[in-house]
Amino acid sequence: MGALAHAVVDWGTSSFRLWTLDRDGRVLGEQRSGQGLLTAAKEGFETVLESHLAALDVPAEVPVMMCGMVGSRTGWTEAAYLDAPVRLERLATHATRVPDTRRPVRILPGIAQREGAHPDVMRGEETQLLALAGERHSGLACLPGTHSKWVELKGGAVLRFATFMTGELFQLLRTASVIAPAVEGGAAVDPGSAEFSEAVGEAFAAPELLSNQLFELRAGWLLAGRGASATNARLSGLLIGLELAGARRRMGSLDGAVLVAAGPAAALYRRALAVAGVADITVRDAEASVREGLHAAAKLAFLEAQGACP
Amino acid sequence: MGALAHAVVDWGTSSFRLWTLDRDGRVLGEQRSGQGLLTAAKEGFETVLESHLAALDVPAEVPVMMCGMVGSRTGWTEAAYLDAPVRLERLATHATRVPDTRRPVRILPGIAQREGAHPDVMRGEETQLLALAGERHSGLACLPGTHSKWVELKGGAVLRFATFMTGELFQLLRTASVIAPAVEGGAAVDPGSAEFSEAVGEAFAAPELLSNQLFELRAGWLLAGRGASATNARLSGLLIGLELAGARRRMGSLDGAVLVAAGPAAALYRRALAVAGVADITVRDAEASVREGLHAAAKLAFLEAQGACP
Repeated sequence: MGALAHAVVDWGTSSFRLWTLDRDGRVLGEQRSGQGLLTAAKEGFETVLESHLAALDVPAEVPVMMCGMVGSRTGWTEAAYLDAPVRLERLATHATRVPDTRRPVRILPGIAQREGAHPDVMRGEETQLLALAGERHSGLACLPGTHSKWVELKGGAVLRFATFMTGELFQLLRTASVIAPAVEGGAAVDPGSAEFSEAVGEAFAAPELLSNQLFELRAGWLLAGRGASATNARLSGLLIGLELAGARRRMGSLDGAVLVAAGPAAALYRRALAVAGVADITVRDAEASVREGLHAAAKLAFLEAQGACP
Repeated sequence: MGALAHAVVDWGTSSFRLWTLDRDGRVLGEQRSGQGLLTAAKEGFETVLESHLAALDVPAEVPVMMCGMVGSRTGWTEAAYLDAPVRLERLATHATRVPDTRRPVRILPGIAQREGAHPDVMRGEETQLLALAGERHSGLACLPGTHSKWVELKGGAVLRFATFMTGELFQLLRTASVIAPAVEGGAAVDPGSAEFSEAVGEAFAAPELLSNQLFELRAGWLLAGRGASATNARLSGLLIGLELAGARRRMGSLDGAVLVAAGPAAALYRRALAVAGVADITVRDAEASVREGLHAAAKLAFLEAQGACP
């Protein structure tokens, strides 16, 4: 391990993750908490950040690179969107300096798609893509989540992207709709379950039936006593199948896409992509990607800008 | 006007409507309130019903026919579903007698679809269809709402039906999703607006893009400052367009359908069906239909069963 070079933070609506890194991006220390935007806005962003840095004994001059909703209008300091198409390296050179902080703190911008018929925004996912940029990646990337992103990359630039509300719809429907009692107490979705795969296949083949098939989840529970875990798996499968059908429509063939995902989402999307007949998927860990992307940006902004590179 | 024959009630989750009718179904009196199921469960179903009957001076022996969620498991008395395919006249002969009431009170059953791959249920809409049954209607009926129904009728029988969660999705998305701030303060959807028609056309042609187009509503507001009324119209159009694409998939050609709707829904669905190229739509008023259906059932159950007919 080398000496501490910088700290990097992925700060979202509901979570805070911090790593201290050496100049090669090796992890020296790590902090995690549920102090997302809402909590931090009350406690004070700098207070939260410094408490985690203090817990790792990070000296006062060590700079911090951040990404995520912390840079939104309702975050700490707004880091204005860069417009697509955009080279990912520009994220680092356009990181916004948070004013009046004890140490240098920068926030990476999100990316906006203003031109054409498809307005769209991302904030946080672009940093995961930055980790691919070093490899001059061309092709599609899929980043599942509350708002899943499908991104077309070319030679380290984001050409265009499309967001799908898959995760948010899943949460809304399972907690606040007439489907809620039918999934209550159900287990987490098993990517190996027949219900999940069948639902992916059905929605991919006939996405226009979505709002009918959602109601059938309730009716199947009411009339046939379908269990909560099976219903939950079907709900997830229908929404992911819809996303894949939409992504194919917007992006063309999904073959060869890089799936940037962590935990349960990785397994679910791998399975769903297989059901949809998508070939040659590569999987990258989302958390490692965001850390690597933050490190790449920190290196450009803090080390190379200071002429500290050999 | 003839003498008072019976009272009829459409009692739903959030509303109560009562009419007193003569033996030919002419309206003698009317009561409306927001005492839906939740309110009535607290105040007592019979108390609420009798208070409205008392307001119209309805004598103690006059019978009452009801429909709607009042007959669900969480209502006053469960009126078990009849299974489709079913002749609509059987609704009246299978009305459930509410036990221990001062006057005869019956609740019409809903209809369940248990056979085959598409479990589904309706409760309330079947009574609107009963009004069509007298005409031995064959063909499709569309009943827009929180849970829109598309029903295939043949010679006065319900053959099969499909429910679409259109209205519920609209409410969830406009109040509880990231789209909410983009429609806040917006006007009710104008069926004549270009945004509504365009969105219907887009969703009908490419329903697989739904969860992408939903997110674009937020992005279009964020980036392009699209107004709340226009965004609201697009949201409505996308969901109705999705429903029409799904209905066509499940039911085949939608030409010649009877649209049973009231108020704003009638105009929105008329326009949407025109955008989707559906021909020969007939519109019937939903409220008149439910009243006529309840009257037809009351006549069969109370008048003809008692041998009171000439």
